[in-house]
Amino acid sequence: MRVGELSRRTRVSVPSIKYYLREGLLAPGRRTGPNQAEYSEEHVRRLRLVRALLDVGNLSVAAAQLVLAAVDDEDRPLHMVLGTAQHAMNPSAELPDDEPTARARARVAELVARRGWQVVERNPGWPAAVEVLATYERLGHRDLAAALEPYADAMETLAAKEVEAIVAGDDREQTVEGAVTGMVLGASLLTALRTMAQEAASARRLGSRAEPGRRPQVDRRSSG
Amino acid sequence: MRVGELSRRTRVSVPSIKYYLREGLLAPGRRTGPNQAEYSEEHVRRLRLVRALLDVGNLSVAAAQLVLAAVDDEDRPLHMVLGTAQHAMNPSAELPDDEPTARARARVAELVARRGWQVVERNPGWPAAVEVLATYERLGHRDLAAALEPYADAMETLAAKEVEAIVAGDDREQTVEGAVTGMVLGASLLTALRTMAQEAASARRLGSRAEPGRRPQVDRRSSG
Repeated sequence: MRVGELSRRTRVSVPSIKYYLREGLLAPGRRTGPNQAEYSEEHVRRLRLVRALLDVGNLSVAAAQLVLAAVDDEDRPLHMVLGTAQHAMNPSAELPDDEPTARARARVAELVARRGWQVVERNPGWPAAVEVLATYERLGHRDLAAALEPYADAMETLAAKEVEAIVAGDDREQTVEGAVTGMVLGASLLTALRTMAQEAASARRLGSRAEPGRRPQVDRRSSG
Repeated sequence: MRVGELSRRTRVSVPSIKYYLREGLLAPGRRTGPNQAEYSEEHVRRLRLVRALLDVGNLSVAAAQLVLAAVDDEDRPLHMVLGTAQHAMNPSAELPDDEPTARARARVAELVARRGWQVVERNPGWPAAVEVLATYERLGHRDLAAALEPYADAMETLAAKEVEAIVAGDDREQTVEGAVTGMVLGASLLTALRTMAQEAASARRLGSRAEPGRRPQVDRRSSG
């Protein structure tokens, strides 16, 4: 298909497609003339993945480039591809050498040890977690760090299921792409569900959000 | 204090401070001369919050502006301030009118109804969740949507605790700022812990990540 049809099929504008081609996020089409190229179903598929990582997963173009290069490298073991996706999702934190950081480091190391998590300190989540805890303290909200244990409980349970699903796959290409997609877009899904669950918990705790002309809804769970 | 000391205290460069002043993220100091202003502890505190929202919470400057304006408006009820933070964290999704979107909408509506979540469709998490599920289907990874229920379980449990902690506060300013901080930075903390937990789950399931010269670590949980 021509670039116009590729654009229609994927709802991605031609200028955006050309930008992705220049940035190497999309492989060039097969040249059929001086200003013409032919694109395949493979391009449709890849373009959808590019848009998903950028628009739904909120990766930067640079981060998406790294992730896609890792997906495309057939010699790279699955766990290294996933490691690249993890780096893309946790912007590398430059941790200052101060008291809150030292306390946060100790807290995270203790969490990892107590849970028996086999995690290397290079794991990009490690400094990212330290940074959030240190920031809570600097802002005078040390109480927020109380969320660490319930958060870790929840993520431990989810991660076990996610890894099980990844391991169950048999086709390499499908498995790698699915694993990366679930890792990147899963973070957006978690944030979305947390947002909804917070409203629900707030309504349950405080009564319905006051909205003009809107009666509090019946709590369907307690009413049957 | 002068701008130089404000910069030293907060480790934020003077040009960045001037940028935040121009963008209204930071209130002007008290004018003490034609090119001189005096800043207070209030500025130190606010500057730390600005940096936390931008650098640790990954909000855009525009999103941080909205959130801080909401925090500063003393007449705004807490739930509306939190609603603003929720919008800032879930980039508004323009949902296409296609089959995957229709199926994803039905799936999320069914989830909300079954769990008795009192959530309005305007909640920014709602379209964001629909978008992720529809994207999974478009990419040929419908199996990833199986994560919806365990994710919702986890977020329901966490949200109840988060709302309880917010409600427990008594000082309005401290409560609002803490709630917003926990909401925005909490998403980064969840992503960080998920990243670590995935590595731990993967090591547990597949054996240690192969690293040259590095022996698999002993699983501390099962050995003690």
